[in-house]
Amino acid sequence: MKMRNIRVLLAYDGTEYCGWQIQKEGRTVQGELERVLSGMHGDRVPVTASGRTDSGVHARGQVINFRSELSSIPAEKYSLALNTLLPEDIRALKSTLANDRFHSRYDAVRRTYRYYISTDETCLPQHRKYCASFRYPLNISRLNACAAHLVGDHDFTAFTVPRDASKSRVRRIYQAAFYTAGPFIVFTITGNAFLWRMVRSIVGTLMEIEKNNGSSDDFFAILKSKDRARAGTTAPARGLFLHKVEYDEQYR
Amino acid sequence: MKMRNIRVLLAYDGTEYCGWQIQKEGRTVQGELERVLSGMHGDRVPVTASGRTDSGVHARGQVINFRSELSSIPAEKYSLALNTLLPEDIRALKSTLANDRFHSRYDAVRRTYRYYISTDETCLPQHRKYCASFRYPLNISRLNACAAHLVGDHDFTAFTVPRDASKSRVRRIYQAAFYTAGPFIVFTITGNAFLWRMVRSIVGTLMEIEKNNGSSDDFFAILKSKDRARAGTTAPARGLFLHKVEYDEQYR
Repeated sequence: MKMRNIRVLLAYDGTEYCGWQIQKEGRTVQGELERVLSGMHGDRVPVTASGRTDSGVHARGQVINFRSELSSIPAEKYSLALNTLLPEDIRALKSTLANDRFHSRYDAVRRTYRYYISTDETCLPQHRKYCASFRYPLNISRLNACAAHLVGDHDFTAFTVPRDASKSRVRRIYQAAFYTAGPFIVFTITGNAFLWRMVRSIVGTLMEIEKNNGSSDDFFAILKSKDRARAGTTAPARGLFLHKVEYDEQYR
Repeated sequence: MKMRNIRVLLAYDGTEYCGWQIQKEGRTVQGELERVLSGMHGDRVPVTASGRTDSGVHARGQVINFRSELSSIPAEKYSLALNTLLPEDIRALKSTLANDRFHSRYDAVRRTYRYYISTDETCLPQHRKYCASFRYPLNISRLNACAAHLVGDHDFTAFTVPRDASKSRVRRIYQAAFYTAGPFIVFTITGNAFLWRMVRSIVGTLMEIEKNNGSSDDFFAILKSKDRARAGTTAPARGLFLHKVEYDEQYR
């Protein structure tokens, strides 16, 4: 039977999950998807994602793919089938038939994350799981001066954790900026790939620059130092969304 | 000891509550507030609100008041004290010292509700508890033609439930309109007061008009009929927010 390669655009509320990747204990997004797909297929169906998300991190535009031999379901109907079986905090937004060679992780060329910061003195209850609050005024123009230093090819060792096993810690950042949207200040960052905890380490460091009335030169010095000890604490997971994943021309 | 009249601006996520009003069984917002305030005061503290909200309905700008003899807490610090003791889905946004005669229900002159409708084919997980989806295209300009019929003094019997015990079912609507905001179509309505289930009955009826490709004349005929049986089903609680409550000049 012909195996089709199914690609799904996925959103999830990460609050109740121990991240994307299946692990021995704890509920994971990959675990829920494989459970549902294995039930549909009567056999184990491994699922690949564009990248892992950490415990508590959300996704607006995660991309996954898996092989399926269910010839009865049109590719674009997998999203509907998944949504009837998945928990409400994971939603398939779209499903399509992908090229046989398509791999959601290896073929991704640009990833965009967004980090939501509440500007309300008290965060509204309906936003409490989807943003972080910092208790000091933020200067957007200074934050953008800092963010501009991120663009380009840099060794981001200062903004990851020792456990990160990447061979190279150089990543290419295409854009990084702060803007206001309703009751939030949003940090958006697009890169070819990201180190472990990189976005949250950057946000945490920028918040400390703001708190201490530092400058964009201070931020640049931390980036260049490649010294994690000089960076700030990791910002909370609940503010972070994997917003979008982009692919090469051939897979668009 | 002097009893002060404390006024609090309150927001809550109604998902986990059986509405505002204390009842024999089930968790309520009033119950949580009175529990926390009674703990602070060592005595029962009754709390009054601008109006009840139903099970699952949210609030962005509920107004409450209660009497307190805790002379040690400045009026504007009650919000902070409450937030340290209340569950995360109830937040005091502001607290002030009110005139002794101020009553959050009797003195309210305008209430504004907002109803959030998702326009995404699949509602994003982080919005799932705060909006409702209707599976057909909505015509905003027709919806606004319908909404215009609501403005003024009308008997809203068609848009309430038989259990509503109001002496008169005439209410004054100051404004009613639909607009788009991000991934939502929002219905905003301001009136002197509302009957039980009135906003959700209006939204449910408007959605049926849309579904059946009806006209604003059809909607007006339903309003004028005072016949609940001609109206649509009640729209889900999760889309509704008590947005704002306004008071007379003397209490602003």
